[in-house]
Amino acid sequence: MSAVQLVEVGPRDGLQNEKKALSVDAKVELISRAVDAGVSRIEAVSFVNPKRVPQMAGAEDVMSQVPRREEVSYIGLVLNRRGLERALAADVDEVNVVVVSTEEFSQRNQGCSVAEGISAAIDIVGDARAAGVFSTVTIATSFGCPFSGEVAATWIGEIIAQLVGGAAPDEIALADTIGVGVPAQVRALAEIAAANAPGIPQRWHFHNTRNTGYANALTALDVGASALDASIGGFGGCPFAPAATGNIASEDLLYTLDRSGVTTGVDMDALVKAADWLGIALEKDVPALLGRAGGFPQR
Amino acid sequence: MSAVQLVEVGPRDGLQNEKKALSVDAKVELISRAVDAGVSRIEAVSFVNPKRVPQMAGAEDVMSQVPRREEVSYIGLVLNRRGLERALAADVDEVNVVVVSTEEFSQRNQGCSVAEGISAAIDIVGDARAAGVFSTVTIATSFGCPFSGEVAATWIGEIIAQLVGGAAPDEIALADTIGVGVPAQVRALAEIAAANAPGIPQRWHFHNTRNTGYANALTALDVGASALDASIGGFGGCPFAPAATGNIASEDLLYTLDRSGVTTGVDMDALVKAADWLGIALEKDVPALLGRAGGFPQR
Repeated sequence: MSAVQLVEVGPRDGLQNEKKALSVDAKVELISRAVDAGVSRIEAVSFVNPKRVPQMAGAEDVMSQVPRREEVSYIGLVLNRRGLERALAADVDEVNVVVVSTEEFSQRNQGCSVAEGISAAIDIVGDARAAGVFSTVTIATSFGCPFSGEVAATWIGEIIAQLVGGAAPDEIALADTIGVGVPAQVRALAEIAAANAPGIPQRWHFHNTRNTGYANALTALDVGASALDASIGGFGGCPFAPAATGNIASEDLLYTLDRSGVTTGVDMDALVKAADWLGIALEKDVPALLGRAGGFPQR
Repeated sequence: MSAVQLVEVGPRDGLQNEKKALSVDAKVELISRAVDAGVSRIEAVSFVNPKRVPQMAGAEDVMSQVPRREEVSYIGLVLNRRGLERALAADVDEVNVVVVSTEEFSQRNQGCSVAEGISAAIDIVGDARAAGVFSTVTIATSFGCPFSGEVAATWIGEIIAQLVGGAAPDEIALADTIGVGVPAQVRALAEIAAANAPGIPQRWHFHNTRNTGYANALTALDVGASALDASIGGFGGCPFAPAATGNIASEDLLYTLDRSGVTTGVDMDALVKAADWLGIALEKDVPALLGRAGGFPQR
C-alpha cells in the first residue's frame, strides 16, 4: 500500500464530546487549517439535533464559510432524512450515514432500532445518489459495544449485506466507536466486508482508548483500506458512549505513514501546529504525542 | 503466533528516568507484584554506576529480597565487566548487555565507542556463558538515534554479525530507545537479524513516544518475536536520551494480546492494579490507558 486518504474528522468527531463548544468561526478556522495542511476529505459538520449535541450546532453556518476548493471534499454526518435534507441544502460534497450495530447503543445514539437504522440508511443513500452526492455508511460499534459487549464480525457482515441489497453506498466505514478493537478483528472485518460488499471501498474509524488504534489503522491499510479517519490532536469521543476517548490523532498517524513511505499529501508539521491551536481553543492538553515528542531527529 | 514471553522491564527501564527514586522495599514490591501477576521474566535491576543513575542504586539489595521461584527468571542489565561481576555475585538468572549502535549515544550512555561496546559485549557474553548464565545483547537505538538520526538496518545487521562472530548471545534484543520506529522497520530489522544470527531468538523493546510502540510490538510478534519488553504502567525513559518517554505499557500490550488469543500467562487486571500502585509510589499519573478505560465491556 503506497497511498491512503486521510479523512480529517476533528471538526466533527473531535469536537462533539468536548465540554467547550467552539464558535462557528473557530470551527471554520480548524477546517481551514486542515485544508491548508493538504487534507482532501474533511468531515466538517454533523446534521444532528443541536439540542442533543450542542457542540455540533451551526452546521449550516460552518458550511457557508468553509474554503471551497476543487480538490477538497466536505462530508456531513447524517443520522436521518431530516439530516440529509439539511446536508443537501448546505451543499456538502458527501454524506456519512451512521448505522449502529447494537440495539441499546442504536436507541441511545439515534433513537431507533438497528433494523430501522439500516432501513433509514438505505433510503438516505438512495436519495443522496439521486442528488448526485457521494455516500458512506459507517457501521458504529463494529468492534464491540459499551452495553452489549461482543459484536460478531458475521453480524457486521449481515448488516453490510442488507445495506448493499437495499442501496449500495459508495463507501463503507467500519468504526471502533469505543476503542476496543484489535488488529485481528480488523482482518476479520475487512474480509467479511469485502465478501458482502465486493468492490466497495473500505474506510476505517479508530479510537485509541486502549492503545490499539494506531495498530488497527496500520492493519487496515495492510488489508486494503482506501481511507482512514483521524482527528487533529487526537481529540474526540462520543456523547452517548460511556468512557469513549479520542480518535487516533492525524499527526501521529501521519508520522507512521510518512516514515513508512505511504503517501497522503498532508503536511504533518502543519497538523501539529493546528493541534496546538486547537488545544488552546478547547483549553485542554492535546492527547496526540507528536507535538510533545517532535518528529524524527535530524542529524 | 499463539504465545509470547512478556519481559517486564518496569523495575529497570520503568524507573531509571523518574525524578523520584524508589526505595529498595518499593522496588521489591513492584517486582513481587509482577511475579504474582504471572510474569516469568523480569528485568529487575541494572548494575550501572549509581552515581550516574541514582534510581538504580541498591541492585544487590533488591536481588537479595526478590521472591525466588522456579518459574521466574530475573534479568540484570549490565554495560561492562564490573557490572557482570556484580550481576553474577547477586545471583541473577540472566544478564542483558547493552550495545549502542551510534557513536555519540554510546559515549553518553556507557562512555565508550561502538566498537568498544561490541568488544565488551562479546567478552561479557563469553563470561556469562562460562558462569552458566543466559545472556541477551540489546542493540540500543536500532531504529534511530537522538543525535545522529537515521540508523541503517544494514548497520544493525553488521553489529549482530560481529557479536555472533565473537560469542553468540542466547538472545538478541532490538531496541527502539527513543520511540521513533515504525512497523516497516521492525520487518526489515527482523529479517536482517535472522540472516545474521540464524536460530537466535529475537526480543524487542519499544517505547510509545510517537504512538508507534504497540503497532511495532504486534508487528514484531507477527515476524516471530519470542519476547516483548513492556513496563507496568508505561513509565520509563532513558536518562541519556533527550525527550525519551515511556515504554509500551505491560497492561495495554496484554489487552491486545489477550483479545488476539496470544497466550502470555499474565493477568492483565493484576498489572492494572500494580500500575495504580506504582503511580502513587512515583507520585505521577499512569501513562497506560487500560486503568482509565477499563477492559473490554462485559454485557
